Amino acid sequence: MSEYTGYNGNSLEFLKTNKILVGDSVKILADITYSGIVMPRYEHSDDKHIVLKLKSGYNIGLEINKIIKIEKKVSIGKKIEKNQEVEKNDNLPNILLLSTGGTIASKIDYRTGAVTPVLTAEELNSSVPELGEIANIDTKVLFSEYSENIMPKHWLKIAETIKKYSQSNYAGIIIAHGTDTMHYTSSYLSFSLAGFPIPIALVGSQRSSDRASSDAALNLIGAIKFLIESKTNGIYIAMHQDENDETIACHIGTRVRKNHTSKRGAFQTVGNDPAFLIVNNEIHKNIKTEFFTVNKFDPKIKINEKVALVKYYPGYNPNLLKNIIDLGCKAIIFEGTGLGHIGENMYPVVKIANEKGIFMGMTSQCIDGRVRMTVYESGRDLLNLGIIPLENMIPEIALVKAMWVTGNTEKYDEIKKNMLKQIASEFTT
Amino acid sequence: MSEYTGYNGNSLEFLKTNKILVGDSVKILADITYSGIVMPRYEHSDDKHIVLKLKSGYNIGLEINKIIKIEKKVSIGKKIEKNQEVEKNDNLPNILLLSTGGTIASKIDYRTGAVTPVLTAEELNSSVPELGEIANIDTKVLFSEYSENIMPKHWLKIAETIKKYSQSNYAGIIIAHGTDTMHYTSSYLSFSLAGFPIPIALVGSQRSSDRASSDAALNLIGAIKFLIESKTNGIYIAMHQDENDETIACHIGTRVRKNHTSKRGAFQTVGNDPAFLIVNNEIHKNIKTEFFTVNKFDPKIKINEKVALVKYYPGYNPNLLKNIIDLGCKAIIFEGTGLGHIGENMYPVVKIANEKGIFMGMTSQCIDGRVRMTVYESGRDLLNLGIIPLENMIPEIALVKAMWVTGNTEKYDEIKKNMLKQIASEFTT
Repeated sequence: MSEYTGYNGNSLEFLKTNKILVGDSVKILADITYSGIVMPRYEHSDDKHIVLKLKSGYNIGLEINKIIKIEKKVSIGKKIEKNQEVEKNDNLPNILLLSTGGTIASKIDYRTGAVTPVLTAEELNSSVPELGEIANIDTKVLFSEYSENIMPKHWLKIAETIKKYSQSNYAGIIIAHGTDTMHYTSSYLSFSLAGFPIPIALVGSQRSSDRASSDAALNLIGAIKFLIESKTNGIYIAMHQDENDETIACHIGTRVRKNHTSKRGAFQTVGNDPAFLIVNNEIHKNIKTEFFTVNKFDPKIKINEKVALVKYYPGYNPNLLKNIIDLGCKAIIFEGTGLGHIGENMYPVVKIANEKGIFMGMTSQCIDGRVRMTVYESGRDLLNLGIIPLENMIPEIALVKAMWVTGNTEKYDEIKKNMLKQIASEFTT
Repeated sequence: MSEYTGYNGNSLEFLKTNKILVGDSVKILADITYSGIVMPRYEHSDDKHIVLKLKSGYNIGLEINKIIKIEKKVSIGKKIEKNQEVEKNDNLPNILLLSTGGTIASKIDYRTGAVTPVLTAEELNSSVPELGEIANIDTKVLFSEYSENIMPKHWLKIAETIKKYSQSNYAGIIIAHGTDTMHYTSSYLSFSLAGFPIPIALVGSQRSSDRASSDAALNLIGAIKFLIESKTNGIYIAMHQDENDETIACHIGTRVRKNHTSKRGAFQTVGNDPAFLIVNNEIHKNIKTEFFTVNKFDPKIKINEKVALVKYYPGYNPNLLKNIIDLGCKAIIFEGTGLGHIGENMYPVVKIANEKGIFMGMTSQCIDGRVRMTVYESGRDLLNLGIIPLENMIPEIALVKAMWVTGNTEKYDEIKKNMLKQIASEFTT
């Protein structure tokens, strides 16, 4: 990060004139007085504003023309302290924590400006002192991205990192991750790391760590308890079960969705109870089957991004599907209506995709329930046109699986076989 | 419908040789013996099969090469009987029933081959005798389409028909409709017929009317009770509340989704209880606000189909958005992640859309909860790039509203104003 990340033109000039760097704590007099930290901006921002992270945790943009006075309170240079080594307790299990960014790491935002990721063991232990009493936690910062910016290339990096720890003294691995796309990441890891011997929990936070109402600490403690005591493996998402602070739910990484924009209990296992609940330090197990169908860890870490998720709706222009074909997609996952339907107006383009040997899978925008394409004539037509019903796979998870499957094989028959094969609890009966 | 709809080549030849028409009841000897009705096929079907609707309600395709014998049991010609007039009871309220197709009308399938719609008052009364005791029902067949084939042009036809009955002696209007896209249709009617003085209920069925487990009768009875007794107006979807036959839920037509592929209680009001429940013939009202913000009925029945719903996911290719722009879209509704985000890699193309004056609205793929784009830097960037947060509008409903709004005005400011204006209970507080 440069000292002026994202600032340009007038706003850059303004910062330089006032000797303010991104990350500095400042007091600004404009219409009223604001105190906060100067935040970095993204490439496409205008040059009329500077962005301030307030104590409340919210960012505001201030028009530089309206700023009467800006005063530096604490310089970014003074804030960066040496990390102290945390002493290990040999009687406690070891946990590896990988940080990828998101709200859960946003305590750090206030000090350095939301981009430099500094989720060290010391910071963790100081903000959640209970952690030091249950595990020795090693941390590793992989990158720092809001989850809407996490791309398949980031999934690869996480998987490549975790792969190395299949033979380690860790009881489990935590991935701190933004919540928005957590279930896409968890499902990629579920497929690519099938058979991984120790449990992995993705943990996020709906409120940043230094806000009074933050759910970060409880989610972390619950996830670590789960990793240590569940005696299982697999990839899970560990988050609040509801608005109360009593229960952490661990969801199967291929059966979970973020179903609310802001609630703490935003994550839900589709059509089922969560696999595990941590209530008052006790673990309750709700699943009877193994997470993976394979026992041996044999990672397949490849991705083909040329896969599209097509949500059908009345008035969907079939030319959009044609464009997807023309962009060279190897697989198309339909998010059809009801039991797995799309309009007749789509048939001619679907036929083209079929003739080109593109894998087409059907899921439902109902989210819950199984597609069944033999009930109605229209479903049977789609079967004849080569669309494969994907049982009750969740659309987003089917998309990720198709990226993974087509990344690891190019043959249509293999793709079809693997899309329908249970690998990491992505189907339920 | 021709006598051989959809059949061609070998299968057409087979039917002609055996003097079988679509709609005939037949007995077929192949691997085992099948009894059922010969069904029509769609344009893109192969010529190797004929399709039979079995007594169970399911269709099967039979390979003509494997058919040993086909025998006509009842000819289609003998089945079409004259409709008898149903006598009106002057003491009962009058209800208009418009039929558009779908599973609810699929009793008819077995007799005529699933395409000719014949949901007459007599047939209704004979299959659901209770109806005649609570209302006089006039019926009108608008068309007969599975709901995945219902397009904006069909919405127009429904709205144009209903418009004529704003001054009538009907207590309410029922629309029999396939369930898959019912909530798209209900929201279009909610916007275009704002202020319509009498209540309208869309009714569907998850199991066809002549199957033992059908929910059609109870849904119809519940809907009619609702229309007669609720003393309200607005557009609702009336379906089973759950798997039990005790409760019919009436959902606000702009706040409802089909959330399960097959359950009877598939429809849910997002983030809230249904507006009305009909339990043991009693009506329970859960809403306190008026359905429409206007009192006067002033229909605006126009649609612009050049609107796209873009569901963002990791790996979404920004060129797909570019194609949408190039196809001349007037509005784009994003189904973003979490509080309303899309990846940074989308910004350059979003900028192009903004420069072209395309309306861009943000909803969330979480479905439930409100978008809030001021919390994170990335949301603020999207605001700067001209994306308008659409509060807690459901993505599919925002799409339909955008089609309606852009159909009725071309000016950006008007579009924006109307997209954010409460019209038919599409936002909640």
